[in-house]
Amino acid sequence: MNNIVEPVARVLIKCLDHKGLVYNISKIFFDMGLNIETNQEYVDKHSGWFFMRTVVSGNFEVDSLKSKLLLVLPDKAKIKILFPTKKKIVLMVTKESHCLGDILTRELDSALNAEVVAVISNHTNLSELTQRFDLPFYHIDATALTRTEHETKVIKQLELLDFDYIILAKYMRILSETFVDKYKHKIINIHHSFLPSFIGANPYNQAWERGVKLIGATAHFVTNELDEGPIIAQDVVVVSHRDTWKDMQNYGQDVEKIVLVRALKLVFSDKVFICNNKTIIL
Amino acid sequence: MNNIVEPVARVLIKCLDHKGLVYNISKIFFDMGLNIETNQEYVDKHSGWFFMRTVVSGNFEVDSLKSKLLLVLPDKAKIKILFPTKKKIVLMVTKESHCLGDILTRELDSALNAEVVAVISNHTNLSELTQRFDLPFYHIDATALTRTEHETKVIKQLELLDFDYIILAKYMRILSETFVDKYKHKIINIHHSFLPSFIGANPYNQAWERGVKLIGATAHFVTNELDEGPIIAQDVVVVSHRDTWKDMQNYGQDVEKIVLVRALKLVFSDKVFICNNKTIIL
Amino acid sequence: MNNIVEPVARVLIKCLDHKGLVYNISKIFFDMGLNIETNQEYVDKHSGWFFMRTVVSGNFEVDSLKSKLLLVLPDKAKIKILFPTKKKIVLMVTKESHCLGDILTRELDSALNAEVVAVISNHTNLSELTQRFDLPFYHIDATALTRTEHETKVIKQLELLDFDYIILAKYMRILSETFVDKYKHKIINIHHSFLPSFIGANPYNQAWERGVKLIGATAHFVTNELDEGPIIAQDVVVVSHRDTWKDMQNYGQDVEKIVLVRALKLVFSDKVFICNNKTIIL
Amino acid sequence: MNNIVEPVARVLIKCLDHKGLVYNISKIFFDMGLNIETNQEYVDKHSGWFFMRTVVSGNFEVDSLKSKLLLVLPDKAKIKILFPTKKKIVLMVTKESHCLGDILTRELDSALNAEVVAVISNHTNLSELTQRFDLPFYHIDATALTRTEHETKVIKQLELLDFDYIILAKYMRILSETFVDKYKHKIINIHHSFLPSFIGANPYNQAWERGVKLIGATAHFVTNELDEGPIIAQDVVVVSHRDTWKDMQNYGQDVEKIVLVRALKLVFSDKVFICNNKTIIL
Repeated sequence: MNNIVEPVARVLIKCLDHKGLVYNISKIFFDMGLNIETNQEYVDKHSGWFFMRTVVSGNFEVDSLKSKLLLVLPDKAKIKILFPTKKKIVLMVTKESHCLGDILTRELDSALNAEVVAVISNHTNLSELTQRFDLPFYHIDATALTRTEHETKVIKQLELLDFDYIILAKYMRILSETFVDKYKHKIINIHHSFLPSFIGANPYNQAWERGVKLIGATAHFVTNELDEGPIIAQDVVVVSHRDTWKDMQNYGQDVEKIVLVRALKLVFSDKVFICNNKTIIL
Repeated sequence: MNNIVEPVARVLIKCLDHKGLVYNISKIFFDMGLNIETNQEYVDKHSGWFFMRTVVSGNFEVDSLKSKLLLVLPDKAKIKILFPTKKKIVLMVTKESHCLGDILTRELDSALNAEVVAVISNHTNLSELTQRFDLPFYHIDATALTRTEHETKVIKQLELLDFDYIILAKYMRILSETFVDKYKHKIINIHHSFLPSFIGANPYNQAWERGVKLIGATAHFVTNELDEGPIIAQDVVVVSHRDTWKDMQNYGQDVEKIVLVRALKLVFSDKVFICNNKTIIL
Repeated sequence: MNNIVEPVARVLIKCLDHKGLVYNISKIFFDMGLNIETNQEYVDKHSGWFFMRTVVSGNFEVDSLKSKLLLVLPDKAKIKILFPTKKKIVLMVTKESHCLGDILTRELDSALNAEVVAVISNHTNLSELTQRFDLPFYHIDATALTRTEHETKVIKQLELLDFDYIILAKYMRILSETFVDKYKHKIINIHHSFLPSFIGANPYNQAWERGVKLIGATAHFVTNELDEGPIIAQDVVVVSHRDTWKDMQNYGQDVEKIVLVRALKLVFSDKVFICNNKTIIL
Repeated sequence: MNNIVEPVARVLIKCLDHKGLVYNISKIFFDMGLNIETNQEYVDKHSGWFFMRTVVSGNFEVDSLKSKLLLVLPDKAKIKILFPTKKKIVLMVTKESHCLGDILTRELDSALNAEVVAVISNHTNLSELTQRFDLPFYHIDATALTRTEHETKVIKQLELLDFDYIILAKYMRILSETFVDKYKHKIINIHHSFLPSFIGANPYNQAWERGVKLIGATAHFVTNELDEGPIIAQDVVVVSHRDTWKDMQNYGQDVEKIVLVRALKLVFSDKVFICNNKTIIL
């Protein structure tokens, strides 16, 4: 609708809130001749953090903008200036194909604004599906290895790759604290959610026995904090006692793959900030 | 659309499954000249229970039908023959008005097919709202009483009343095993549900801190079995980080009252069977 | 969580977009010593309109702030400076009680942040329910009157009342262009929505015959523009062929009342802007 | 959970309702020594049609069961006796990949219980995606052809294929009455749904301009009756003014593909009956 010929950039700011922030920041944009295309702010009263996502258009030098912003922001402010490019992602999977298949078929369409760099798995089941899309598949077997030994191999492979995010697209192994710390805020996971929640093997079978009427899914960043890490997206689907646990699993897989991609779209648009153990989506 | 002048009855059967059940049961209906208006069966393969809800029309004697059915059903079969009448309900509440208000305003409309016999509360807050609808409000204070002492008083009041179901419409006290056993399968509760779940005081505040994207509610029978008892209805509503915890609570209360009434409609239509710790809704 | 002792005001701005708006506006807040509590902007690229909702705290004179803002905003800019007070509303109804009952029971709880000034109806059915809440009920019969004659009487009554919004809480008469123009952007309506849509008498019966799987509701401002006016909130509920058309109507009424109140909460928080035939919710 | 070694069949009956149907039908099952695994009936009071879906286990001859049933059913009764096998499907597509990609990646998992026989398109865009799954892709160009000429070519190709259903997985050409009659009740379509509905080019752009808060999808049988044919499944997704029309389209495509597959699962399980212009799902 609008033909933008000038470069467009996303300016992301996270800092402690104080009076005059919006004025001081927008003054810099104004003085540099930048136009504000969209702008959103949020102050988390609880923690005192200020979040701002501004899309600006115009010609500017990234370093110059950054240093000017740093002058007016409080200590420990975090600034990111990003241009809308395809995010590079590594998919980690185990045996289930629904999330992988969904991402790979979307990719061809450019609907996700991402590029799959590689697929890594502790099993070989999804090798064929990956190769149908001419993508590298790295099988890193975990058999007879300790968690540390296996993760060392995975990290070794990851270090050969150039990527922005690791997507756990039904990767069924628990990651160590070391691994999670190494890729802080770069790992996104999807998993099933139930009301009430079920622990242990075959949660769908338990959900069936319990007669739940809803099956859900939660996409979240992986952190070492309590439970699941900051939630990015959630949804549910209606089920009934007529559904077998296999039906419930199928419905659950549908909602998992849709919720994962919904979260990825938000993250890859640089709209998602992390504030303690929650997300702020601007 | 169809003008039924003959009596219509709901025949509910629960028994162990075996070959020939549908044939033997429908033969009795046929031989007695009854017409099947609707019929649904369900076999829970896991437990081996057979459930059947048949709406029949025609003239018949209840005892005669019951004794004929007993002859062809296996031991321990449970038969209920019910005519569509308003269920009599006692509402137990504490301080929150949303579920009570919703039921009372529906009542006037006959939308719920129930009659509120009385409102019992451990507080006085909802006395005024109840009296606006010319209904008896029994305040049974729990201050300085043990759980047993308080429940004894509640039971004493309940025994003076004629009712089919007790609805915990935001009754915030835990019921003892004794109380629950006394009114087995007659107590229906509503409570908030979260993904993930939160324990302790002010769950909405916790949900807000955790940045959940969905707030849910679950209506269920109260039993002494594990966790919450058989689920009758569930639903969720979408929230975001922009919502305060008070907003989340308001949304949660909306979904609570709608889910509770959805459950009540199903139960009061005699559509809900209990099978171990789940419901079968026919 | 935060104890604000200073006055808090909502500053709403709608004007044509141009470079420097955020800077110039936030400069005024800064110079006047006001703190930005929350701030959201939106530019509708299609029409070129800029929308801004800022919650500021601090001591200031309304006229002074307004005149300073007018100096930096383009021609035809609209500015509203509002303090969080209960909105005064008139409810217009016909025969159905579900929306009226829901609003009246909420009112007692202050959950809606509104005050019902009066209920106006072309029928008497809802007189009793209204009086249970000690509110004035004006029956303005439409029998044997032309639309203009009836609306003249309604307007005469409205002019005796002090109100911010007229809520059509299942008011089943079509309003004339004159009436709608007189109360521009002050009338909010709720009505059922179906996929596909049904025209004519008893839409629920038609929806049943058509076997829809979803029943919806839409809350919107009433305008004289094409179809329904700017949509504020929408939702749906799942139904099946097992539901009678009466069941579908009951489910529809549930979603209608919830969606109406959701819309009212947004409007009464001064979060809803109108942009051509759509809403911008900040 | 249960190990069935005997053959399991789905018996589908549609006939005019009259007294004794369930008795007479279940008597035949009983006399033939068949066990009823699940059974559901529905009587559409409006039209007088009776529908029954019974899953039976045991050894029997199909022709024998069919002829015995015909003896007790009224004239024009329709009986289908089906064994759970993979349905063979032809996918007709145009340019959009989301439904095709979703079905093809599911196929590998056997989650859909179907086998894709071929993909037919009036464009070549989806040839590559189809070939990644080693499936035949027939490009039947419509350029410079009348509708009749093009459909004649499509039918010629279809007649060379062995299939149960034609799935219009975003096939953007209108089918003639002749085509629809030829494959009566065998064509399933998916399309977007909006509240209110939009006609003409780029409905997502219109939905964006109108500020809808929900985007939906409807899967239905294609018939020559009024509007869209019997609805099998519907769902919606929440959107906001922040979403561009392209975002809305992406969300719409997600809900389209999920709803289409949900409908296909129901149809391929032989659970969907057609009753005038609606579906009965047993």
